[in-house]
Amino acid sequence: MRPQIVLFGDSITEQSFRPGGWGAALADTYSRKADVIVRGYGGYNTRWALFLLNHLIPLGCTKPPVATIIFFGANDAALLGRNNERQHVPVEEYEENIRRIVNHLKEYSPTMLVVLITPPPVNEEGRKEYARSVYGEKAVDLPERTNEMAGVYAKLCVELAKELGLSSINLWSKMQETEGWEKKFLSDGLHLTEEGNAILHQEVVRVFNEAWLCASEMPYDFPHHSEIDWRNPENAFQQRC
Amino acid sequence: MRPQIVLFGDSITEQSFRPGGWGAALADTYSRKADVIVRGYGGYNTRWALFLLNHLIPLGCTKPPVATIIFFGANDAALLGRNNERQHVPVEEYEENIRRIVNHLKEYSPTMLVVLITPPPVNEEGRKEYARSVYGEKAVDLPERTNEMAGVYAKLCVELAKELGLSSINLWSKMQETEGWEKKFLSDGLHLTEEGNAILHQEVVRVFNEAWLCASEMPYDFPHHSEIDWRNPENAFQQRC
Repeated sequence: MRPQIVLFGDSITEQSFRPGGWGAALADTYSRKADVIVRGYGGYNTRWALFLLNHLIPLGCTKPPVATIIFFGANDAALLGRNNERQHVPVEEYEENIRRIVNHLKEYSPTMLVVLITPPPVNEEGRKEYARSVYGEKAVDLPERTNEMAGVYAKLCVELAKELGLSSINLWSKMQETEGWEKKFLSDGLHLTEEGNAILHQEVVRVFNEAWLCASEMPYDFPHHSEIDWRNPENAFQQRC
Repeated sequence: MRPQIVLFGDSITEQSFRPGGWGAALADTYSRKADVIVRGYGGYNTRWALFLLNHLIPLGCTKPPVATIIFFGANDAALLGRNNERQHVPVEEYEENIRRIVNHLKEYSPTMLVVLITPPPVNEEGRKEYARSVYGEKAVDLPERTNEMAGVYAKLCVELAKELGLSSINLWSKMQETEGWEKKFLSDGLHLTEEGNAILHQEVVRVFNEAWLCASEMPYDFPHHSEIDWRNPENAFQQRC
C-alpha cells in the first residue's frame, strides 16, 4: 500500500541498518510514508548485480517501487593484480552494467525515480591498516583499491547520470570536501562511519527533496492520532481509509 | 520474495528506526534473509489499531508475512481523568482488541508467527519531567500513566498469549529486573533509550530463535560473494536462483 524505496547496492548498502546507518535513517525520514527496502549485497560488483536484477525487480510486477537507489562501484574499482582482483570490473563495463540496470528499471516503470550514487573515496592507509588487522604479516603492502581509481568510476557514474537524465550523488567528491574525511567518514578506508552514514543520508534526502519525493509533502498513511475524535474515532478513518 | 516480518504497534514501534532503534537492529539481524516492515502509529491504542487492520493486512492477499509482532498497550493504559484520557482503553477491551488482531492474522495465515509484546514499565517521575518540559507551569502534577496500571495491561497480555498459544515478551517485567531501569531504559518515562531498544531487540531475537525464525539458520537470498567463481559467475546464480 505504501510506496517503496529500494536501496540496491553492495556492502555499504547491506550494512545500512546498523547503528547510525543511512538506510535506517532514510526509513525513519519516510516513517509512515514509504517503506525502505534494502537490497544490499556485500562484495558484489555490477557484473554480479545483473544476475539479481530479474529476481529483485521482475518485469511485469504490478507495483513498482517509486524510487530505486543504485549504489555500486566500490568493488568494481578493486585493482587487478591485487588482493581483491576477483571483484574488479573494468570501468567501461561498470558503466554499461549501470546503464543496463537503469534501463531495466525504466522499462519496468518509466516514472520511477532512479538515483545513482558513486563509490565513496578510498583512504589507502585505512585499507592497509585493515589488511594488516585481517592478514597480519601476510598482508600485501600495495593497496587493493586506490582513491584515484575510485574517482575514475565516480566521474563516469556522474556523467552517465547526466546523460540519462537521472539524479546522482557524487559521494567521492562530497566526502573529500571535509578535512579529515579519511577517518571521519570511513571506518576501514572504505566503509562508512556513523558520520559518513549521516552525510550520505543527508545527500539522499536532498536529492529526493529536489525531485518529487519530499517526505514532508507526502501524506501519512493513516490519520495522525491528534486528528482522531476519541468519541467518534470511525470518522477519521472513514475520511482517510 | 523475501519473507516479511511486520512490526505493528504505537510510537515505540514508529520510532524503532531512529538511531539505535530495535526495528533497525532487527532489520540488520535478518539482513538478506527477511524484510522488516514497520507499521508503527504514534499515539494509537488498540481500539484505533483495529481500524487499520484490514488495510494493513487485507485477507486474501497472496503472500502473508511470516511473522507479526503486536506491540500495543502503552496508550491504552493511559489513565481516565488525566491529560491523555482520550487514549485510554479499558483493560478488558484491550484484551479483546488484541484477541481480534490475532484472530485476523491467524485467519489470514494459520502458520504466521505472532508475538505479543507488553507495554514497557512507566517511570512516573520521568513522565512528570516530560510534562513540565512540554506544558511548563500548566503541567498537571498527577501522572497520566502509572507503572502499576501498565503492569495490569502487561499481565493480561502475557496471559492472553499463553491462552492463544503465542509467544510473548513481558517488557514490563524484563526491564524492571535491571536496577536503574527508570533512566537506563526510558528516555521520558515511557519511550525507549538506546539501551532500552537494545534489550527489546535482544528479547525479540530470543523469541524468534526459540520459535522457528532463527536468522542464522535461514538462507541468504543470493550467493555470498565468496561463493562466486569470478571466472564463471553464472554457476553460483544458476544453482541458487
